Amino acid sequence: MVEKHIYHFSEGGQGMRAVLGGKGAGLAEMTRIGLPVPPGFTISTAACREYYEQGDLPAGLMQELTAAVQRLELETGKKFGDPTNPLLVSVRSGAEFSMPGMMDTILNLGLNDEVAKGLAARSNEKFALDCYRRFIEKFAELALQMPASAFSGSVEELKFRERIKWGDELSLESLRRLVAEHLTSVHAFTGQSFPSSPHDCLQKAIKAVFASWQNERAKVYRRLHQIPDSLGTAVTVQAMVFGNLSSLSGTGVCFTRNPSTGEKQLYGEFLAGAQGEDVVSGARTPADLSTLKSLAPSAFAELQKTALLLESHYGDMQDIEFTVEEGRLYLLQTRVGKRSPQAAISIAMDMLRDGKIEHDTLLSRITPEQIEQLLHRSVDYTKNPQEIATGLPASPGAAVGVIAFDNEAALRLTKTHGKVILVRPETSPDDIQGMITSQGILTSRGGMTSHAAVVARGMGKPCVSGADALNFDLSQGTVSIGKYVFKEGDELSLDGSTGKVFLGAVPLVEPRLNDDFWALLCIADQKAALGVRANADNPLDAALARRFGAKGIGLCRTEHMFMEPGRLPIVQAMIMAEHEEDRERSLQSLLPVQRHDFYGIMKAMDGYPVTIRLLDPPLHEFLPSKDELKEQIVHAIDPRERIRSERALRTVERLHEINPMLGHRGCRLGITFPSIYAMQVEAIAEATFDLLAGGHNPQPEIMIPLVAHHRELLLMRRLAESTWHRVELRRKMNYPVPIGSMIEVPRACLVAGEIALHADFFSFGTNDLTQTTFGFSRDDAEGKFLPSYVAQDVLPQNPFAVLDIAGVGQLMRLAVKGGREAKPSLKVGICGEHGGEPASIKFCHELGLDYVSCSPYRVPVARLATARAKAKDKPESTDK
Amino acid sequence: MVEKHIYHFSEGGQGMRAVLGGKGAGLAEMTRIGLPVPPGFTISTAACREYYEQGDLPAGLMQELTAAVQRLELETGKKFGDPTNPLLVSVRSGAEFSMPGMMDTILNLGLNDEVAKGLAARSNEKFALDCYRRFIEKFAELALQMPASAFSGSVEELKFRERIKWGDELSLESLRRLVAEHLTSVHAFTGQSFPSSPHDCLQKAIKAVFASWQNERAKVYRRLHQIPDSLGTAVTVQAMVFGNLSSLSGTGVCFTRNPSTGEKQLYGEFLAGAQGEDVVSGARTPADLSTLKSLAPSAFAELQKTALLLESHYGDMQDIEFTVEEGRLYLLQTRVGKRSPQAAISIAMDMLRDGKIEHDTLLSRITPEQIEQLLHRSVDYTKNPQEIATGLPASPGAAVGVIAFDNEAALRLTKTHGKVILVRPETSPDDIQGMITSQGILTSRGGMTSHAAVVARGMGKPCVSGADALNFDLSQGTVSIGKYVFKEGDELSLDGSTGKVFLGAVPLVEPRLNDDFWALLCIADQKAALGVRANADNPLDAALARRFGAKGIGLCRTEHMFMEPGRLPIVQAMIMAEHEEDRERSLQSLLPVQRHDFYGIMKAMDGYPVTIRLLDPPLHEFLPSKDELKEQIVHAIDPRERIRSERALRTVERLHEINPMLGHRGCRLGITFPSIYAMQVEAIAEATFDLLAGGHNPQPEIMIPLVAHHRELLLMRRLAESTWHRVELRRKMNYPVPIGSMIEVPRACLVAGEIALHADFFSFGTNDLTQTTFGFSRDDAEGKFLPSYVAQDVLPQNPFAVLDIAGVGQLMRLAVKGGREAKPSLKVGICGEHGGEPASIKFCHELGLDYVSCSPYRVPVARLATARAKAKDKPESTDK
Repeated sequence: MVEKHIYHFSEGGQGMRAVLGGKGAGLAEMTRIGLPVPPGFTISTAACREYYEQGDLPAGLMQELTAAVQRLELETGKKFGDPTNPLLVSVRSGAEFSMPGMMDTILNLGLNDEVAKGLAARSNEKFALDCYRRFIEKFAELALQMPASAFSGSVEELKFRERIKWGDELSLESLRRLVAEHLTSVHAFTGQSFPSSPHDCLQKAIKAVFASWQNERAKVYRRLHQIPDSLGTAVTVQAMVFGNLSSLSGTGVCFTRNPSTGEKQLYGEFLAGAQGEDVVSGARTPADLSTLKSLAPSAFAELQKTALLLESHYGDMQDIEFTVEEGRLYLLQTRVGKRSPQAAISIAMDMLRDGKIEHDTLLSRITPEQIEQLLHRSVDYTKNPQEIATGLPASPGAAVGVIAFDNEAALRLTKTHGKVILVRPETSPDDIQGMITSQGILTSRGGMTSHAAVVARGMGKPCVSGADALNFDLSQGTVSIGKYVFKEGDELSLDGSTGKVFLGAVPLVEPRLNDDFWALLCIADQKAALGVRANADNPLDAALARRFGAKGIGLCRTEHMFMEPGRLPIVQAMIMAEHEEDRERSLQSLLPVQRHDFYGIMKAMDGYPVTIRLLDPPLHEFLPSKDELKEQIVHAIDPRERIRSERALRTVERLHEINPMLGHRGCRLGITFPSIYAMQVEAIAEATFDLLAGGHNPQPEIMIPLVAHHRELLLMRRLAESTWHRVELRRKMNYPVPIGSMIEVPRACLVAGEIALHADFFSFGTNDLTQTTFGFSRDDAEGKFLPSYVAQDVLPQNPFAVLDIAGVGQLMRLAVKGGREAKPSLKVGICGEHGGEPASIKFCHELGLDYVSCSPYRVPVARLATARAKAKDKPESTDK
Repeated sequence: MVEKHIYHFSEGGQGMRAVLGGKGAGLAEMTRIGLPVPPGFTISTAACREYYEQGDLPAGLMQELTAAVQRLELETGKKFGDPTNPLLVSVRSGAEFSMPGMMDTILNLGLNDEVAKGLAARSNEKFALDCYRRFIEKFAELALQMPASAFSGSVEELKFRERIKWGDELSLESLRRLVAEHLTSVHAFTGQSFPSSPHDCLQKAIKAVFASWQNERAKVYRRLHQIPDSLGTAVTVQAMVFGNLSSLSGTGVCFTRNPSTGEKQLYGEFLAGAQGEDVVSGARTPADLSTLKSLAPSAFAELQKTALLLESHYGDMQDIEFTVEEGRLYLLQTRVGKRSPQAAISIAMDMLRDGKIEHDTLLSRITPEQIEQLLHRSVDYTKNPQEIATGLPASPGAAVGVIAFDNEAALRLTKTHGKVILVRPETSPDDIQGMITSQGILTSRGGMTSHAAVVARGMGKPCVSGADALNFDLSQGTVSIGKYVFKEGDELSLDGSTGKVFLGAVPLVEPRLNDDFWALLCIADQKAALGVRANADNPLDAALARRFGAKGIGLCRTEHMFMEPGRLPIVQAMIMAEHEEDRERSLQSLLPVQRHDFYGIMKAMDGYPVTIRLLDPPLHEFLPSKDELKEQIVHAIDPRERIRSERALRTVERLHEINPMLGHRGCRLGITFPSIYAMQVEAIAEATFDLLAGGHNPQPEIMIPLVAHHRELLLMRRLAESTWHRVELRRKMNYPVPIGSMIEVPRACLVAGEIALHADFFSFGTNDLTQTTFGFSRDDAEGKFLPSYVAQDVLPQNPFAVLDIAGVGQLMRLAVKGGREAKPSLKVGICGEHGGEPASIKFCHELGLDYVSCSPYRVPVARLATARAKAKDKPESTDK
């Protein structure tokens, strides 16, 4: 038995995405439901995988291909390679998950000198030559590995001579010369004539499309979107219809809804007298659909009808490619449309309200990343930013950064300047790395469906496209906008929601979130098993977190309170105290201040738990640096000042640590300086009883950091309890305060059963746990070797961003198991940065944690992620 | 049913140590085999435990006690409290494990004014009063908590007035006054008369002995010897016999063999006209046994006979306390005798040869700590050290250090000067802390069985006792020896093997190890399952390790080679290289040097494996410090010199790390700078083939440090293999070099199965693994919080010294399981410092490791420990 590798459109359907790729499956499905699709067939992804395994096309594929072409000839009534009635085909890539523009496509295949002449005779010569020169250019580049630049020089020359902007406006004479020159160039480059056998070309084209699965930009895109390298691409071979046949022809792309706002309207672009690649490449800026409406009203009406039908059929907004040939509509592709985060929510909520989707589908349609993008800030127009150009609002959001003209500069300037805006005439798939690196993208050419626009929307990055006020002088390395001349490294801002470009760095404002946004999160909350708390150290952040929907504070750090300018001198005096009484005096001055801090935070979170971590960082962090103090000593005028600085210097030298991350911090401080922790507990207790007395509902929890041995927790628990009871007696009130442990070093996970006996709750500190499990200092690793680790694929990703489930996760699993076996009532949460990262949240859900805690701005992200974690059998998104 | 708490000697035996304590069991056993033991009974350790649980003596104990005393009255024909024929008893402590001198004993109980008069009438008044004043002093101190100093003033006064040295030479008149003054002092201190009821005194004395279980020095001793606090002590009540009755009486202590050398001879001391405490307290320097022989020949002959009988009965060297009353021998105690490490080996090997013990018993008799002590260095007499005094050779070994007069000074000077010698007139159990801290002990009084001597031998510390040339002026804080006056902090040396004391710091020589030592280790090797390798970085250390019996090198660090003066500039140039070619050039200069290093080490270990770890430390460790470079820049005269220093400074600043322990080191270096590792592998390969060509048998193994993810090892393995193959091709030879992984971060343990797929062996680096598992930086922890952690019992011991089995050990268990499941042939060893620590070795044995690797000097220790680990059901030693 030989496995079947080729499926005619009539043999497939939407369920076969994995076999036919998204494009092949979509074309088959549209054929099945009777839409006007030019006939064709698809070579399966399995053939691609075999091609990579064997280094050649699978056995038997050529016979199947010959048969498939014959069937296509029957269906079209045309003949492949026959000058009198030639069949031309497109050869298009299409993987299971959409990778727009990442892989290659060859149009107009089936032409050679003879066929071109025949085609000219049947239609018109200019059309035939335009098809031929397009075919030669693309085929030579992709199948013969001839660099694109070998042609572009002569096209540019022609354009300059004829004073025209676009290649397709060339005169017949020029086209003739161009084709002749192209053929000569190919011969010069390859040493052979351009291949004249259409069958031979088809085989080469199929191989070229398979090969494009492994090109650099496709690999980068897959890594970015976590698409497995092993899937492979399908190849679709389809009879050509020609948007460049006449002035009643054209090609377009449309969305069934507005992809930026979600508004329910047909939204798209059309380019008359052009082939598909002209629209998506951004080489020409297309007009909107009204052009089509006036040019071919019946085709437009059919498009409208088809759009509604397809959206309803697929139950989601569609992105449709179409061609109009002599006034007749043909559909070339339909897929789930990429959309802005705001549009994603509006569309999904709209469909929910219309009863078209359920809650689970709703939650699967919005990714946590989209929620995050919506929380981005926007341009503050009240500050009158200086507008210098306007383009198309291609992808919403505001970006501020320095100008970079290419990938290399984007990487370099990100290191030196932090934030970068990629500014280019237009983008191509080769620019993907620079787009990933930059904060936003600005192009002078291309429309709303150009490469730059589509990719930027997919990434959730702001983009302004087609801002034609930009004039590049790449030889000088400058771009001028009006009277301003910018070079790389100069600052610029843009607003992808309005298409405006601004001089310098403009002020930004917080995001405005609409009702759909909040409604979505409420639905998520109902679904989620994990609670969401926030990490917040002050009443303002606590209030913000509460507005974002946090149900408590999972980590209230107390060190930032110590750092506040008015308090730092007291803290420093406390640290430098040589006698216990002096230390005690300083602590007594800190007590009312801390009490006030805790009062404010618990009041802002009234009714919800607030987990307060006792002092964690090494004490030297509160003192000036050695170099600073040495300066102060040299320049001191007041001798008392000098003595103070000298004492501070001695203290700093005494406290100096070789590896402060692993040094005298956390509960180690509490054990050696119990009076500091006692003061903090007293302040929490006083604040609690003040609030209780005022009729509030404070819910403090005391958390001991960096516990590695159960006796550390036991000692600190005793200290906290006795302090708490003393305040209870004094205040004649009581409140049973829970006392728990951070779990942030491997040993704590390994002996969690022992620790749990003294803990009311655990909270994973996965930042430190990742550092100690890997033996990576984050501060050093991220600057020194981690980027090269990820780049060299030593690690699949930065473990400080995405939880390392195999290592750190295994320790967490041990800790939850050990802790809950020893104490089934143990509450367990996570308060490391991973608590706001969707993949890590999913793992926390699987572990059975009670809550995640993250920074206030990530609370909405976490709320959605916790709900999606529960629907674990659902894919991350219907469309990657 | 009421539990029995009191056992007469005739009811017990050696098997009841846990119930009767060592002393009670020994007395019962000697009674059982018919030796002359004064009658008595023992109150069980269970009674002591109940006393601590209930805060009072167990119910029913008083009735049992009354009955036991009545039985004792019957056996002795004397009556407790009867002035006409008084029964006096001793009340003595005795725990399961010997704690010599740590707890309290009260002699002569049964006396009051009336009884003393009666005793005087029956014997002589001076004897009666001597007994009475001893009883009052001891009882007041221990049962009435009256400080000893309240009496000693008046005794000292009397001694001064009567120009005599010892209390027992006081005149009758003085003794009468002393007793009267003592009774007045007690009344003044307690507000009550000295208790006149012997039964009342007995009850109080029993409580006092129970209480002494928890005195400070006993607790310190137990912690040092790992004796559980929960055991409790027994109390033995025994009819008194009187060494102070007449000039034909006396008391003594003897060993069945020489405790320093192991020589088979009766070895002991005798003090005529004295009670037991005079000998052990070191308050008087006793004579040797010849005194007894001339004084009471038949008692001496019986002692000789008894000693042989007891040693044979117990199968081990005994330490016997005896008293001679009017020429008649009585035995008061027998126990396994403490002995020097050298004696321990000689005695055990002698008994093995005599067929008295088996291999397992032999191995259980010698502790790894004793092996370690034998490896201590001794005084180099060829350098003519300046001898200034001679005392008794109380505990062998040489010590060099600065003088400390008490515990506090010993602790303080250890911090500032490193090594300390405790110098005292005599030591008492209160000095235990200072003895632990010091390198050696020197006393001016006391014999071979004095407190100082016994405790020092137990600790394996050098001690010279009874060096009467020492004259203390404690008011001035000085001690003079001949013409030299020393104060605290002055340097001194002593040789505990010869009793000599030297001026200043004398040169030491390596230990001389006798045939018994090597024979013992050969027996150990036959027994052991674990192999023993050494950590060595150069041919000299490798040769030394081999002499000590190492069967290979488990860790050859390469960083020390980089640090050698001639090479450092090349290494620095390599690090500062701005271009890859410059780095390559420096590496090419290092190649022949490294090749030579590896050649030498493998040659020294010919026929055994040598595990070479590729470069591990962060590169900045090879550069001067920032401060040094800044100095150099300021003071540079040659401008090229300045430019070099400036470049070095920039490199240092670039390489600076916040937490270097967790930074850019180990295989992270290999991944970012593959050329360094490639050079090292090439050097190992060249050295291997040079040796093979010369007919040697090199067995290199390449070890990759700090692996946390299997891909790190995979990349480095590929690099090493391709380099190795290149040399194989060039040399036309081949050798299949094993490549393995350090396991030294928690993640490596957690994913050991994945790592094992790319590893031929694992080697645990437990130093780093302990650091990362606890989140402790050793450099910081040991100086800052670890001592206070151990002191506050947060941790049972320093985890860098003794492996933390609960935490780090659990990770090791996971790693061995994961690694061996993935690859059953995986060889696993340990090369952290724990590889030479006996308790950690025992755990490694239980884990099924293949070998331990430790520093050369610890190889013999490890050899014994590996054998003892296998005999795991045996206790650590027969005598704690």
